[in-house]
Amino acid sequence: MSGIVTLLTDFGSRDQYVAAVKGVLLSINPSLNIVDITHEISPQNIKEAGFILASACTYFPEGTLHLAIVDPGVGGERQGLAAATERYLFVGPDNGLFDWVFAVDPPHQVVVLENPDYQLPQVSATFHGRDIFAPAAGHLSLGIPLEKLGPASHYRMHFPGRQILRDQDKLQGEIIHVDRFGNLISNIEILSAGTERKLRDLQVTLATEQLLTGPGTYEEAPPLRPFALIGSSGLLEVSVRNGSAHKVTGCGVGTPVLVRRLK
Amino acid sequence: MSGIVTLLTDFGSRDQYVAAVKGVLLSINPSLNIVDITHEISPQNIKEAGFILASACTYFPEGTLHLAIVDPGVGGERQGLAAATERYLFVGPDNGLFDWVFAVDPPHQVVVLENPDYQLPQVSATFHGRDIFAPAAGHLSLGIPLEKLGPASHYRMHFPGRQILRDQDKLQGEIIHVDRFGNLISNIEILSAGTERKLRDLQVTLATEQLLTGPGTYEEAPPLRPFALIGSSGLLEVSVRNGSAHKVTGCGVGTPVLVRRLK
Amino acid sequence: MSGIVTLLTDFGSRDQYVAAVKGVLLSINPSLNIVDITHEISPQNIKEAGFILASACTYFPEGTLHLAIVDPGVGGERQGLAAATERYLFVGPDNGLFDWVFAVDPPHQVVVLENPDYQLPQVSATFHGRDIFAPAAGHLSLGIPLEKLGPASHYRMHFPGRQILRDQDKLQGEIIHVDRFGNLISNIEILSAGTERKLRDLQVTLATEQLLTGPGTYEEAPPLRPFALIGSSGLLEVSVRNGSAHKVTGCGVGTPVLVRRLK
Repeated sequence: MSGIVTLLTDFGSRDQYVAAVKGVLLSINPSLNIVDITHEISPQNIKEAGFILASACTYFPEGTLHLAIVDPGVGGERQGLAAATERYLFVGPDNGLFDWVFAVDPPHQVVVLENPDYQLPQVSATFHGRDIFAPAAGHLSLGIPLEKLGPASHYRMHFPGRQILRDQDKLQGEIIHVDRFGNLISNIEILSAGTERKLRDLQVTLATEQLLTGPGTYEEAPPLRPFALIGSSGLLEVSVRNGSAHKVTGCGVGTPVLVRRLK
Repeated sequence: MSGIVTLLTDFGSRDQYVAAVKGVLLSINPSLNIVDITHEISPQNIKEAGFILASACTYFPEGTLHLAIVDPGVGGERQGLAAATERYLFVGPDNGLFDWVFAVDPPHQVVVLENPDYQLPQVSATFHGRDIFAPAAGHLSLGIPLEKLGPASHYRMHFPGRQILRDQDKLQGEIIHVDRFGNLISNIEILSAGTERKLRDLQVTLATEQLLTGPGTYEEAPPLRPFALIGSSGLLEVSVRNGSAHKVTGCGVGTPVLVRRLK
Repeated sequence: MSGIVTLLTDFGSRDQYVAAVKGVLLSINPSLNIVDITHEISPQNIKEAGFILASACTYFPEGTLHLAIVDPGVGGERQGLAAATERYLFVGPDNGLFDWVFAVDPPHQVVVLENPDYQLPQVSATFHGRDIFAPAAGHLSLGIPLEKLGPASHYRMHFPGRQILRDQDKLQGEIIHVDRFGNLISNIEILSAGTERKLRDLQVTLATEQLLTGPGTYEEAPPLRPFALIGSSGLLEVSVRNGSAHKVTGCGVGTPVLVRRLK
């Protein structure tokens, strides 16, 4: 363990929920360094959470534990899990939140969080983040082995994940996140683009509108016109220079995106 | 001291105020671990702040110092205080902010923050959080005794606090907080409910509407219908499965809640 | 180095951008203490960012590194810089963000961030915060000398900064920030006011409205009437007791403020 725990939730920052989770973590391991990824995931939006987690987590040092809690099924039948990949530990509900991460970095060990010795004495029906996930993360950060937390399991994907353009002629994806600046981020990765930001020889259509694909940076783009580029997460994004692509196009999460080769 | 200071304010996160407080704390004690509870308390809402503080603070390790600043009377006659309870230290204005906490965990020592040796050299009229409360907290975190900060005092309650249903036939309370998910949280605690989330043999009325009391979890509830349950803070809450009770009922802070026994 | 890095951006708190920057910092120096100033700067508002940074940074301990990223020109011709002043280190884009700070605390050493050894292996066109500024800050926090990061440079001011009333008869400034409480903060400093908050012998006009200048604290002010006072940043502010000066006056960023001596 690096001594670092990241935290991603849909709890917002107005209530006591995030602090309660941090208090439980620090009560078990007072020397933890807790880093917020975000608490502003749209309430109960598992897909958005999975994308944000995958985009942020890989920048952290090896041995970081990522605790992620977006949990519409709390108190129902979904299970809690802890998992180890080559570089990281993950703790959270088994509802698809980890699909994006595990598609790239599959876990070599997964357990179901069933051992009451590593839960709070009273488990509420509505706040497993505080009562089950935080204690599990706290104890893992102290070095207890994963298998102490419960029986072994296997991770099963819940959603179709990122769409990758390799040699195909065309590919259909969708907008999965609108960021603070109004950039529309899709689930499409263009492997053939390399490290170049430009979309050579590709036609990109957002809903029914064909987009500009020439500019590789905001500064190269003309004002007010939406254009497609490879964003900082390696995914195809739609942007407007000094403006909001979300406002200019009226498009948002769920809008279809079509990529087609020109020749 | 645990080396942990929590921070709760109504400063928001857009301005320099929170950072100035943290800078003062770290200038006095650079190895502090500062944990935000929230900075999104509705401006000057002392009751809401008191509820959030009480709901979050008990999860932190023994020896944590809780610094809370919601201070509409800054520069006027209200006093600043530091207090020690069995497990924690508290610093902030003496305006009712600590009523909820001290009702459950009464302080055995209270002092008035009057000693200028533990304040910034220049005290502004409008920002005692930075100039008086942060320095007091910083010095306490280094282990100086409470009595150095000023003369001894006694804590006096400012507001009626939480309403507790023990053996009474009925009890009147009110909604004191609307959380991010639209859950309506009341100031009513049902002691007879034990650890069970269901409200057996009780009739709950929000404003004029009688609520469903059967479901103990979100998953057990029917869609779109507001229902009462015991929330994760141990208080009676009104929720809607996969929705916002705030939007569905149109109720908010101050709406009366009546609990009555059915037999 | 104090081991403390502050972070100020316009990234907001919904996306993965802040966490990616923190992950890069911690991957280089896992023992850093990262403190958020704010991430809620209005998108691409360099002047507002400069004011907030200047108001917050001086409260931090000597040796703190301030990493500030508001970067509308990313990928274009603006340069990145690292600078050392008497007490602090600064890293960020060279676009005017540091004007306010350096007007008071001029840097004795400035370098341009050009050395690829202290950048991520792949530098994106749109996220130099993560790829160039965070690695530079992380390596500086480990003690490498400034000159390793790139060639020496000089800082050149971009904007007119704060307006200071010394002996003049009158002075024109403007509102540069509206805080969470609706206080209107100007770029005017009244040196003759000393530590007293009242504006003796001065006439203050906001747009066309002459303001009350008598009250020195919120408690001394009459309700609902906007008044001018020296705020906690040492600048002339316009406030309304228990209310929002922004809402009451309808004024905001850019509104002119005129200060005139009465005799």
